[in-house]
Amino acid sequence: MNSFGKALRVTTFGESHGAGIGCVIDGLPANLKVDYAKIKEWLDRRKPGQNKYSTSRKEKEEFEILSGVFEGFTTGTPLAIYIANSDHKSSDYGSIKDLFRPGHADATYFYKYGIRDYRGGGRSSARESVARVAAAGVASLMLEELNIVVKSGVSSVGNVDGKKYDFNHAKTSEIFSLDKSAEGAQKDKILEAKNSHDSVGGTVVISILNAPKGLGEPLYDKLDSRLAEVMMGINGAKGVEIGLGVNSSKVLGSKNNDLMDKSGFITNNAGGILGGISSGAEILVKVHFKPTPSIFHEQKTLDKDGNEVVCKLKGRHDPCIAIRGSVVAEAMAVLTIADMLLLNLGSKVEHLKKIYS
Amino acid sequence: MNSFGKALRVTTFGESHGAGIGCVIDGLPANLKVDYAKIKEWLDRRKPGQNKYSTSRKEKEEFEILSGVFEGFTTGTPLAIYIANSDHKSSDYGSIKDLFRPGHADATYFYKYGIRDYRGGGRSSARESVARVAAAGVASLMLEELNIVVKSGVSSVGNVDGKKYDFNHAKTSEIFSLDKSAEGAQKDKILEAKNSHDSVGGTVVISILNAPKGLGEPLYDKLDSRLAEVMMGINGAKGVEIGLGVNSSKVLGSKNNDLMDKSGFITNNAGGILGGISSGAEILVKVHFKPTPSIFHEQKTLDKDGNEVVCKLKGRHDPCIAIRGSVVAEAMAVLTIADMLLLNLGSKVEHLKKIYS
Amino acid sequence: MNSFGKALRVTTFGESHGAGIGCVIDGLPANLKVDYAKIKEWLDRRKPGQNKYSTSRKEKEEFEILSGVFEGFTTGTPLAIYIANSDHKSSDYGSIKDLFRPGHADATYFYKYGIRDYRGGGRSSARESVARVAAAGVASLMLEELNIVVKSGVSSVGNVDGKKYDFNHAKTSEIFSLDKSAEGAQKDKILEAKNSHDSVGGTVVISILNAPKGLGEPLYDKLDSRLAEVMMGINGAKGVEIGLGVNSSKVLGSKNNDLMDKSGFITNNAGGILGGISSGAEILVKVHFKPTPSIFHEQKTLDKDGNEVVCKLKGRHDPCIAIRGSVVAEAMAVLTIADMLLLNLGSKVEHLKKIYS
Amino acid sequence: MNSFGKALRVTTFGESHGAGIGCVIDGLPANLKVDYAKIKEWLDRRKPGQNKYSTSRKEKEEFEILSGVFEGFTTGTPLAIYIANSDHKSSDYGSIKDLFRPGHADATYFYKYGIRDYRGGGRSSARESVARVAAAGVASLMLEELNIVVKSGVSSVGNVDGKKYDFNHAKTSEIFSLDKSAEGAQKDKILEAKNSHDSVGGTVVISILNAPKGLGEPLYDKLDSRLAEVMMGINGAKGVEIGLGVNSSKVLGSKNNDLMDKSGFITNNAGGILGGISSGAEILVKVHFKPTPSIFHEQKTLDKDGNEVVCKLKGRHDPCIAIRGSVVAEAMAVLTIADMLLLNLGSKVEHLKKIYS
Repeated sequence: MNSFGKALRVTTFGESHGAGIGCVIDGLPANLKVDYAKIKEWLDRRKPGQNKYSTSRKEKEEFEILSGVFEGFTTGTPLAIYIANSDHKSSDYGSIKDLFRPGHADATYFYKYGIRDYRGGGRSSARESVARVAAAGVASLMLEELNIVVKSGVSSVGNVDGKKYDFNHAKTSEIFSLDKSAEGAQKDKILEAKNSHDSVGGTVVISILNAPKGLGEPLYDKLDSRLAEVMMGINGAKGVEIGLGVNSSKVLGSKNNDLMDKSGFITNNAGGILGGISSGAEILVKVHFKPTPSIFHEQKTLDKDGNEVVCKLKGRHDPCIAIRGSVVAEAMAVLTIADMLLLNLGSKVEHLKKIYS
Repeated sequence: MNSFGKALRVTTFGESHGAGIGCVIDGLPANLKVDYAKIKEWLDRRKPGQNKYSTSRKEKEEFEILSGVFEGFTTGTPLAIYIANSDHKSSDYGSIKDLFRPGHADATYFYKYGIRDYRGGGRSSARESVARVAAAGVASLMLEELNIVVKSGVSSVGNVDGKKYDFNHAKTSEIFSLDKSAEGAQKDKILEAKNSHDSVGGTVVISILNAPKGLGEPLYDKLDSRLAEVMMGINGAKGVEIGLGVNSSKVLGSKNNDLMDKSGFITNNAGGILGGISSGAEILVKVHFKPTPSIFHEQKTLDKDGNEVVCKLKGRHDPCIAIRGSVVAEAMAVLTIADMLLLNLGSKVEHLKKIYS
Repeated sequence: MNSFGKALRVTTFGESHGAGIGCVIDGLPANLKVDYAKIKEWLDRRKPGQNKYSTSRKEKEEFEILSGVFEGFTTGTPLAIYIANSDHKSSDYGSIKDLFRPGHADATYFYKYGIRDYRGGGRSSARESVARVAAAGVASLMLEELNIVVKSGVSSVGNVDGKKYDFNHAKTSEIFSLDKSAEGAQKDKILEAKNSHDSVGGTVVISILNAPKGLGEPLYDKLDSRLAEVMMGINGAKGVEIGLGVNSSKVLGSKNNDLMDKSGFITNNAGGILGGISSGAEILVKVHFKPTPSIFHEQKTLDKDGNEVVCKLKGRHDPCIAIRGSVVAEAMAVLTIADMLLLNLGSKVEHLKKIYS
Repeated sequence: MNSFGKALRVTTFGESHGAGIGCVIDGLPANLKVDYAKIKEWLDRRKPGQNKYSTSRKEKEEFEILSGVFEGFTTGTPLAIYIANSDHKSSDYGSIKDLFRPGHADATYFYKYGIRDYRGGGRSSARESVARVAAAGVASLMLEELNIVVKSGVSSVGNVDGKKYDFNHAKTSEIFSLDKSAEGAQKDKILEAKNSHDSVGGTVVISILNAPKGLGEPLYDKLDSRLAEVMMGINGAKGVEIGLGVNSSKVLGSKNNDLMDKSGFITNNAGGILGGISSGAEILVKVHFKPTPSIFHEQKTLDKDGNEVVCKLKGRHDPCIAIRGSVVAEAMAVLTIADMLLLNLGSKVEHLKKIYS
């Protein structure tokens, strides 16, 4: 339902045009120093309205920690975060309240619940992801203690593919592009779509370094399986790959197998995961996002009563959700690794002896 | 860990070369008529050793229902199924007991647990999937009561892509090929790999028809998210797509959005899921499998003590795991839909009134 | 951890002297009309500072619904409630920050987490129960739709036992006493304890009427098992009984068995539950509360460094936690029944057919 | 449903007169040496038919480990145990197949599921507890590694109370009596009930020594809350107490609070748990069992069609279920502590650093 993770469990709440968005993080170890600036940094990276490549909705993204911290440290009790909504314009949505916007969850929420909050998509809005990012801001403090590094960037926009994964460049790029040489064409692609009142898809890459060997709980909480779950659960995601991914289905075993020598794995087609367990190699995940469904063309659709109508949208929307989606995907990776770190603590009886004696 | 599903919960146990493989299915509604022949049919479709395109290991796959059925009907209590292993040759594995086979889970299980059952991969063997298929055989009886149809097939082998999805043809094809005109070349691809002591990857497509609108529990048990999880959790899966999938990242919103008219969705790029909830359109999932890691080339690897060694395998293996993987993927789809059917029962207060008055 | 319930899942957060207390209610069916006045009524019944039999801490208990409601109805999305703390005096606690108050969770939180929020007990404070009561206020709306009635009252204070269960009288009694004829002596008992700077234990009875037959998920989510869990989890609870309870261990089977005739069960020693499933008879639960651990005597204890010290408390405390505990116990019963109503929807295949066709 | 525990998760299956009873234990740490003799010892203690104080049904209780063990050690994969039923006489039950035995779960299973396996109570039979005891036999190996000791015994039979808790005596007593001086009268009580075709209730005490401080996950997986849950879930349990229990509700705070000095807690009214977390003191739990519902008197009841009928039972039954119930209660305590040991591993960030560096 609205929680994910097993040992580190995040529950989120809130709608796009409600009072605010929040989360409760449960299972955090005690004695983590809470660095407010770092959490803010996470929220700022995801923040809308920062340049012409994203929506013009401006949110302050000021967060409040409501519980779980005492004198600057986590206490082991649930840490709740709340972010008030500050720039929602519900008036934009009056005209669509009775119809189903193409590509959106309007129809399916109505089918499922018999009621929907039409203002900005309600609960199905990408706005909810602010809670995930805030939670990741907290969980990343735990990863830092163990020197685990998670990075993200955009590898392609529409059909403009970058050729390399330069995560340092992505940090400074307005569109988080992983390849400086492709960035210009990628930006053009976005503006072109925006200017023709359209939108465009894109692809995100996540890299995880220094994760301990042994993370992942086979057979049904495998690390790759859980990464696929959380990534496909991000709004607009339609494909997930681990390591060589789709291309591994096109090759021979003699090409795909990663051999080993003293230095470790010689290649990394597996993307750092074998049998659902981390191998010590870099963990690589790719997430493919569809184009933003909100476009400003006239589109044929139905209303709640089943009548054919034409949908003509107003509102402010990202022309390419993959851009800010990369921060959300990074957040989900952080939260998944944090959960797996906790779940793996009981893998061997030696661990229990270390802790309890 | 070793259970999946929330309302319909399947727990599996057993290793490749242990006594047998089994599962416990919990949460099955009472009064389902248990059709043993249909369960056998599921097991037979997955059964190894049926033709030259799969491993020559022969398993009878005779199953026993240990509990949960009374006078031919489910009772609402856990239904346990057990399948004894009948054709395991542990002797094939003596030579690899101290080394890590490339592409296998040997290294990672050892890292995680400090101990591993090396005989045929132990728990990490694809043999475990027999339990999933048996469970799906039971759960499919529930889907039949509601006229929901799940089908599967192989769309590509290596770089040989089929052009169409003919699920009827797949049923009769030795390699479950979805396209008669590509089948010959796909078979050749498999034999070519096999004859050169190699293996090859492949891609599977799952189709779900007649699923009620409204299945999927947002935001963290979305239908697509759960499908991605269970598919990526199948041995050898490295990529999962929903609907247009990876290609949706390459196009414009005006091309990707599915418009509606009186007859429903005009296109189905979404693959039957919007906002994580089923829309009533056909649900389409694609799963990409890597080539079987067990090949008979000499490969560089490490042993448990970190020494460089050469791995030279014996044993019997599928040259293309995607073939039998398609039945497993179909099974996971059946179990996921069954779970979602149960989870959705509480979506509206009207449902409670219908049941309790 | 900090969530309970399986289909209706409540997650709470907040500490006694933090910003506030809140909860997220997940799994609520859509289309429940949200009656704010009724929720307020629940909070008011539990509210401290209403008379001389409870603590003098005064909390407004003004609640805010942050999400999950649209135009007055639930939407199926998580409903978050927040109650700001308004009358906390952390200054009362400075003197005890390094010592373990006898009977409190101070020592154990410190042992477990290596850190504790000493202000008013932090997370371990009974103040957290305001979140449970708010959640029950919402869930009770669902029970009302099905005419299920949950009632509570105090059956004994210290060794002053009431003789009958008059739930109507309890509603009007300042100490929720179930027996008008015992109420005076019970009040005297409380004041006597209070005036001698001491506290006193007490016992609470919960009655549930009109619960449908068939609630409870054997074998490990039995209705009685889950009621025992949630009741024993209330601060200060040390004993739970179902039906005849402890006394059933003292009698013969021929006296304990409830026979049946056309009108139903002739007696109800089972307390409405057989084999963990509701039988249709009145469900009866008894919860025994220890005396408030905060008393104003000098008490020997240890400080964090293991030194022997004398504990001398300040602050404001209920002299008998069973009184307000009865509202909390009623709340937990409401939430448990609501959860069980949802879990039971999948018990028979007939239910699925009713909903999906 | 049919699983319990969160980090150590046990799933059971099987009915009284089906093929057998089994369990799957998931989450066991790897590298535990599996001592088959100790598991057998657990089963033998619970075994029926050993003397005149229990049922004459004779079960060999031969168990088979189907998975999860390799060369004598656990591997971290699920450990499945199966115990075939060997001495069931379904013929005893033909006469009651359409009626509801008083005090049994017959009526409620039928209400819930619309179908019931009437042979020996089917799933609701106490026979299922053999799976719990087998699982505890395995989990106890983990407790032994940490020197944690769990003991059980019978403190009262009917109204014959023992005065002391001598767990060593209980081990050698045919009725597991905790008090040698009361044992004779307790035995007489049982035989008296048996000879008059009746049954009698009883009370069990569980003691847990050397559990580490800090076990229990507040607020909704408190140690006492979880103990109450699992104990009340045992067939026939109607009351659970922790420490002073019911009597704590009758006293003043100044009597109930456990003061501390250098040597630790001076008294132990809390029963070793404060705020739901273990304090290091002995953990004490009391479980009250009703008399066996199967008695051989004529009793008024209803049949499935609602007709008034007279129930006249055959079959073999324990005259006092508390006796063998004490082994089951001990088993549930072992499993709960094992689960809590694993859950607590993530309580402090220091623990993670110890394991991952």
